[in-house]
Amino acid sequence: MYERALDAVRANYTPLSPNTFLKRVARVYPDHPSVIHGAKRFTWRETYARTKKLASALSKRGIGHLDTVAIMGANTPEMYESIFAVPMLGAVINTLNVRLDAEAIAFCLNHGEAKCLLTDTEFAPTVKAALALIDRDILVIDIVDSEADHKHVTLGETDYESLMAEGDEDFQWDLPKDEWQAISLNYTSGTTGDPKGVVYHHRGAYLNAVSNAVGWNMAHHPVYLWTLPMFHCNGWCFPWTIAALGGTNICLRRVNSATIYAAIADHKVTHMCGAPIVMSFVVNASDAERKEFSHKVKFMAAAAPPPAATLEAMQRHGIEVTHAYGLTETYGPAVMCAWHPEWSDLPIEEQARLNARQGVPYHALNDLQIIDPDTMQPVPADGKTMGEAMFQGNIVMKGYLKNPGTTEKSLAGGWFHSGDLGVMHPDGYIELKDRSKDIIISGGENISSIEVESVLYKHPAVMTAAVVAKPDDKWGETPCAFVELKAGVPAPTADDIIQFCRDNLAHYKCPKTVVFGDLPKTSTGKIQKFKLREAAAEA
Amino acid sequence: MYERALDAVRANYTPLSPNTFLKRVARVYPDHPSVIHGAKRFTWRETYARTKKLASALSKRGIGHLDTVAIMGANTPEMYESIFAVPMLGAVINTLNVRLDAEAIAFCLNHGEAKCLLTDTEFAPTVKAALALIDRDILVIDIVDSEADHKHVTLGETDYESLMAEGDEDFQWDLPKDEWQAISLNYTSGTTGDPKGVVYHHRGAYLNAVSNAVGWNMAHHPVYLWTLPMFHCNGWCFPWTIAALGGTNICLRRVNSATIYAAIADHKVTHMCGAPIVMSFVVNASDAERKEFSHKVKFMAAAAPPPAATLEAMQRHGIEVTHAYGLTETYGPAVMCAWHPEWSDLPIEEQARLNARQGVPYHALNDLQIIDPDTMQPVPADGKTMGEAMFQGNIVMKGYLKNPGTTEKSLAGGWFHSGDLGVMHPDGYIELKDRSKDIIISGGENISSIEVESVLYKHPAVMTAAVVAKPDDKWGETPCAFVELKAGVPAPTADDIIQFCRDNLAHYKCPKTVVFGDLPKTSTGKIQKFKLREAAAEA
Repeated sequence: MYERALDAVRANYTPLSPNTFLKRVARVYPDHPSVIHGAKRFTWRETYARTKKLASALSKRGIGHLDTVAIMGANTPEMYESIFAVPMLGAVINTLNVRLDAEAIAFCLNHGEAKCLLTDTEFAPTVKAALALIDRDILVIDIVDSEADHKHVTLGETDYESLMAEGDEDFQWDLPKDEWQAISLNYTSGTTGDPKGVVYHHRGAYLNAVSNAVGWNMAHHPVYLWTLPMFHCNGWCFPWTIAALGGTNICLRRVNSATIYAAIADHKVTHMCGAPIVMSFVVNASDAERKEFSHKVKFMAAAAPPPAATLEAMQRHGIEVTHAYGLTETYGPAVMCAWHPEWSDLPIEEQARLNARQGVPYHALNDLQIIDPDTMQPVPADGKTMGEAMFQGNIVMKGYLKNPGTTEKSLAGGWFHSGDLGVMHPDGYIELKDRSKDIIISGGENISSIEVESVLYKHPAVMTAAVVAKPDDKWGETPCAFVELKAGVPAPTADDIIQFCRDNLAHYKCPKTVVFGDLPKTSTGKIQKFKLREAAAEA
Repeated sequence: MYERALDAVRANYTPLSPNTFLKRVARVYPDHPSVIHGAKRFTWRETYARTKKLASALSKRGIGHLDTVAIMGANTPEMYESIFAVPMLGAVINTLNVRLDAEAIAFCLNHGEAKCLLTDTEFAPTVKAALALIDRDILVIDIVDSEADHKHVTLGETDYESLMAEGDEDFQWDLPKDEWQAISLNYTSGTTGDPKGVVYHHRGAYLNAVSNAVGWNMAHHPVYLWTLPMFHCNGWCFPWTIAALGGTNICLRRVNSATIYAAIADHKVTHMCGAPIVMSFVVNASDAERKEFSHKVKFMAAAAPPPAATLEAMQRHGIEVTHAYGLTETYGPAVMCAWHPEWSDLPIEEQARLNARQGVPYHALNDLQIIDPDTMQPVPADGKTMGEAMFQGNIVMKGYLKNPGTTEKSLAGGWFHSGDLGVMHPDGYIELKDRSKDIIISGGENISSIEVESVLYKHPAVMTAAVVAKPDDKWGETPCAFVELKAGVPAPTADDIIQFCRDNLAHYKCPKTVVFGDLPKTSTGKIQKFKLREAAAEA
């Protein structure tokens, strides 16, 4: 009887889509500031109207259902608007990693079959070279940011504002018929091989946007500073979260100590996100760059476990750090180190130790386990037994575009296989011990490179550190440390560093080799350990 | 290409169900207090274990997929656990309105085809009589609440704790395969005709639970006082919200001024909900009943627009009131008067006027309009043109059980027809002007009974007021006021009341007749205007 004449109809069923948040905020808080970029300020009424105009203009240019629209953009209002406008058409937004080279950009445009490219003039040289490498017609639109100080070289047939002027602000847009419909395409910046095209859907984007709000305990009207690139996993779904909460987006083209502190002080920023490198801008700011603020600021850190020393320093500077973890395949963060109120009473070192763990599933993630990939059974929750972090739930990607084999493999057995290795603690929190293949095995003992790195970060002269395996005739492998030193502090010797580690670590875990210099990083700021492994073999 | 080899599999698709919140909170905050009832205290680990045991025991007794389990319960831990345990089996929880008489309860048990009834001994007399009226076998389990002071008369074959002892706390439960599957059955306490069985699904329960949190700006670890009956629309979905947020449920069998203030002071209650009658307990508490508290308390008021005078008094007592609106058919509140920060700077009277409006859709509600039911077009947003409040979205019911005709009619044309009349303001907020048929038409002019009532509530001697139409040879109808007076204040005459209205209202809107005495109310505390209309005709 519960399944007769109780069907889904228009009155009681709406496909989940994060675009409903934009519609709602424009109705409820039309005069609240939506996006601020330098001297430019928009309200939610204006952002909604501009978004509808852009969607309308793209529609007139022939963009529609499941067409790909790529964008090579900085963190500007145009980028924010596009993330809403393109899905309004049932089209798919493909935010390109602006740090990629022309060849990689061309690969994305070809593989994703982009029909249109919106491109910020800052990236014109790369994009020009990329366009020369593709053999298809593509509508190119220049984003000419009046707040930017670079020289504008245009490539397209018109610019963003002119295109928008072709559109109708009363454009009637629709939700997708099916919430499983693709909303975005995000290429992973893998360290080897061609990028893989991760496809998100409207349902997952909606649910992760809400999970950000509920999981991170965000109140209404956050002031969100864009220290995280919006091209990265659609800004971890935060463009949609900020709309849902009636917040304000503070755009930022150049992320550094001075611009971060200026934004915090000027706009009373409440929230920001990013990799640990962003925290180092905060922590290592000069007195001239630093500004006073008295309100609360929260930082969500992901991409790598924040070193204990950084967590302590952030707290000292009045910024509360939430540690999160995820992958492009999981809409950005899908795991967080949910805080327990009583932890705040512990010594700061103990707090840092607890917070260095990746933690527990987001609300929208059904399950997260450390699994033995051979048996596909969870490992014991003993904080010791290693296994692979695996995810299950609505914020795992649809799959990889045009790559059924890899999709099937990565979603096999009911779980998304992250490739990251870690342990399950007795309290249900996971802790990564290493990215796959980054474990160092020395004399038959496993050594976590993260553990060694976290000790190195405690050394007062260390700015950045990475540890990889160096082949060794006797031990199989030994830990090799690569270290960037801080300026203006006496430089330690390699022996100083090794001695410091021996004071703080089991001796077998200490680096046998220390190399000083700049570390190679990917375009998203991840340290390229595969390059370091090559260097370690020579060191 | 976005629809090839990108299908839903177990790794990337999980049906939405609020039971996932219980699983998550038991993992993340196992030692946090979940439910407190007098001397009884449970943690989330315990509540999850007890819930699984109950589900297991019911399963052993033959309860399974889409069976109905009814509960005649007070706001106790047993009620809270059942709301999770029954859906764990894919069964449907039917929370009965404990204020109904035996005949109505028997109707619900028969119509809903309950296979099992959990019944609190407080309601044994009614339930005993109801069971005599049904002609089917039913498993009856007594809830014997050790914290209650009534005499326990048992009716069933065993009691709740003994039943639970039959179960296994490691019971393996499943999510429903289809998130559209029924989760609960709620009979509307209509003022005429047989109750209608409103069916909710897992998807809607999940989404409304999240919407409560995001819309009401709830932070982690709320302390939620159960002044709202859990039987009412599954406690407006708050049992699930509190689990999602890692909060604590404070149970309350007797809701009155003394118990409310004691709970606020003893447990530092942060949130509570209810009809305006609950606010009157707060506002009209005696000095002996009142206790001091310094923390922030939020109250969500629905069922009737809070009178301005009550809103003012609540604010004076340190309690922030959010005005919400919904129906059983919309999972409880689905509309709220979302606050604008700048409104807090307005004079209190103006704040009250803004907050007396029902407002804007919940996040989970796709749309809410005031619609002309003849044309099915939205009325102009002029704050004047009357129409019917209509809802569209995932928190509109599946439909009425075994009632396809009424279901189809109530969901016709893409909207749920609420039957409530109101206007759309230029700022997108709706305001109800009257429940259907409650409008008073006098001399061709529409008079809103709510408007007249809100003036009556400002009179210092008025406790409760209701205004209905009285048939009149000359004017068609005239307003007739029914008034309950406060104790300990000089009693006004009918002429005093009318003069007070004439000082505050257009004269044609003023009551021509005033009747003093107790007002008839439904079991959920709504004033029964149909009875007053009969009385008005005689007055």
